Amino acid sequence: MVTAAASTEQKHLGEINLRQVWDVLRPQLVPATILTSDRLDEMVGHGIRLHIVADTFQHTGSFKFRAALCLALHAPSSRILTASSGNFGAALARACRQTGKECTVVMPAKSAAVKVENVRRYGGTVDLVDTDRMTRAERVAQLHAQDPSFQVVSAYDDPFVIAGNSSLGAELFESDTYDCVVVAVGGGGLSSGLVVARDQLGSRSEVIGAEPAAGKANRSLQEDRIVTLEREPATIADGARTLSLGTLNFAILREGLEAAVPVEDATIGQSVRLLFEAVNLKAEPTGALGLGAVLQNPERFAGRSVACVVTGGNVDAAVFAKLITG
Amino acid sequence: MVTAAASTEQKHLGEINLRQVWDVLRPQLVPATILTSDRLDEMVGHGIRLHIVADTFQHTGSFKFRAALCLALHAPSSRILTASSGNFGAALARACRQTGKECTVVMPAKSAAVKVENVRRYGGTVDLVDTDRMTRAERVAQLHAQDPSFQVVSAYDDPFVIAGNSSLGAELFESDTYDCVVVAVGGGGLSSGLVVARDQLGSRSEVIGAEPAAGKANRSLQEDRIVTLEREPATIADGARTLSLGTLNFAILREGLEAAVPVEDATIGQSVRLLFEAVNLKAEPTGALGLGAVLQNPERFAGRSVACVVTGGNVDAAVFAKLITG
Repeated sequence: MVTAAASTEQKHLGEINLRQVWDVLRPQLVPATILTSDRLDEMVGHGIRLHIVADTFQHTGSFKFRAALCLALHAPSSRILTASSGNFGAALARACRQTGKECTVVMPAKSAAVKVENVRRYGGTVDLVDTDRMTRAERVAQLHAQDPSFQVVSAYDDPFVIAGNSSLGAELFESDTYDCVVVAVGGGGLSSGLVVARDQLGSRSEVIGAEPAAGKANRSLQEDRIVTLEREPATIADGARTLSLGTLNFAILREGLEAAVPVEDATIGQSVRLLFEAVNLKAEPTGALGLGAVLQNPERFAGRSVACVVTGGNVDAAVFAKLITG
Repeated sequence: MVTAAASTEQKHLGEINLRQVWDVLRPQLVPATILTSDRLDEMVGHGIRLHIVADTFQHTGSFKFRAALCLALHAPSSRILTASSGNFGAALARACRQTGKECTVVMPAKSAAVKVENVRRYGGTVDLVDTDRMTRAERVAQLHAQDPSFQVVSAYDDPFVIAGNSSLGAELFESDTYDCVVVAVGGGGLSSGLVVARDQLGSRSEVIGAEPAAGKANRSLQEDRIVTLEREPATIADGARTLSLGTLNFAILREGLEAAVPVEDATIGQSVRLLFEAVNLKAEPTGALGLGAVLQNPERFAGRSVACVVTGGNVDAAVFAKLITG
């Protein structure tokens, strides 16, 4: 397992000054683009006032750059090794290039081609693993054993990842106009970042997770323990195929996450289509999970002001074409 | 012909206080989203620093809402009639609903289905015309003769249209960081709006037009007269199929437009694809004309800071799917 202990100086989240992190990151980030659409509200109904919070225009096309830059700025080693379904890999590659470090990214062999290419574009080394035979974490451990000079970092279970991602929360909760914020949950890196930002800023917004149908966050909250899936779930939300929540993430989410909503692939597709048609937004399937959770159970959100985070926009053209014409 | 004289009180552009218009419109508009992408710059090359100025998230999904709202706010009549390839129609329908007016929109029968639907969504009446048999302007004249209580407005050749569109120029030229701004030219409504905003704000940026290959703006500038096409050009840029520049527009563009670049359909498609892949942006073909002009002749823009306006994002899913999968 890639644990927090293997990462950056074993620092505790409580020792990190979040406001200082936000101040350092902000000038190097693209702020999230917040969109509203009367057409979307009309189509979703139930008096829900939707705010689409798109981090699709972030550097490398997803929120992961927030975490990656924060990690790279604080990493003691100059050689970094990680596991990623792709977006974190590209983000880390760019962050490492920007901070003069090297990185190797372990990716599932069935990752979207565009995501593999994105890591290489920024000078990162890609190591493809057949996830039906070996988990990404196992492959990372194998590579690390072969070459201990690597610093292993988690894409989610790391205090600097959570601190970096909390910068998106800062953008949302400094104005504090939402009754709730709905966000995709994979390992829990972003959702835990939103929770700590909310608490830091004293906002009373709910944070609600959205995960693929076979997901584990809902079960983990129900059973109050970290539930680990036996194999990566077959979902079009390829950024949320992680086997379990991270340890640090779960500790934050069990206190601060209102709920985790499992979303069917068909609803994720519908959500991609709706963002395309009614918001003119290109979202990747994982990015559409948040809106998907609202579509799945709109009654829950009736009459409320709801921010749906669209975590990224990196999707193969062929996959996207099929989804929007679906 | 739909002339300025048929429109809003025959007011001259010089009598309109642009800054006042900007102040009134600004709180009712979505500001353009300005995006940069190191990947895009890398792919386009020639040391060009591109800034993608997307008005795709504007109300009704295109810049046309700027003009429509300005028109509706100043129109003396409560019943408005116009010709539009679709984006202006939807924009006018929404602006009229917002200001308590009625509108009828004459549209080519071959308009994108999504554009027809958009007009109806906002309560506008759609009148479809077969443009191989009769121009849109002729059909407008016919309807106006049948019912003179209609106030006929042009989608481009009107001082309030130009003033409304100049609000996008205000956003661009108030910061003044671009060597040049490249923008689609149909009737010339937006490009003339950018020119007057630039001149009002004392910016020295060039404004360059981009039009379909069979376009008339380039020829009109070359011949220093308004060249009128015999029939609407068969181009995927369905928002730029107008037969000629407007009278008011030409008067502004002949003095203030640096050039008008004809762009092949294949290059427009390439530009849609590039915006999708490297910027995560959904653009309609007409909206991709600006970047297309850069792709067509990048040497012209070498080493410069270039803003490409993406005028709108309303495109049928099937058309878009085909364009991005090339």
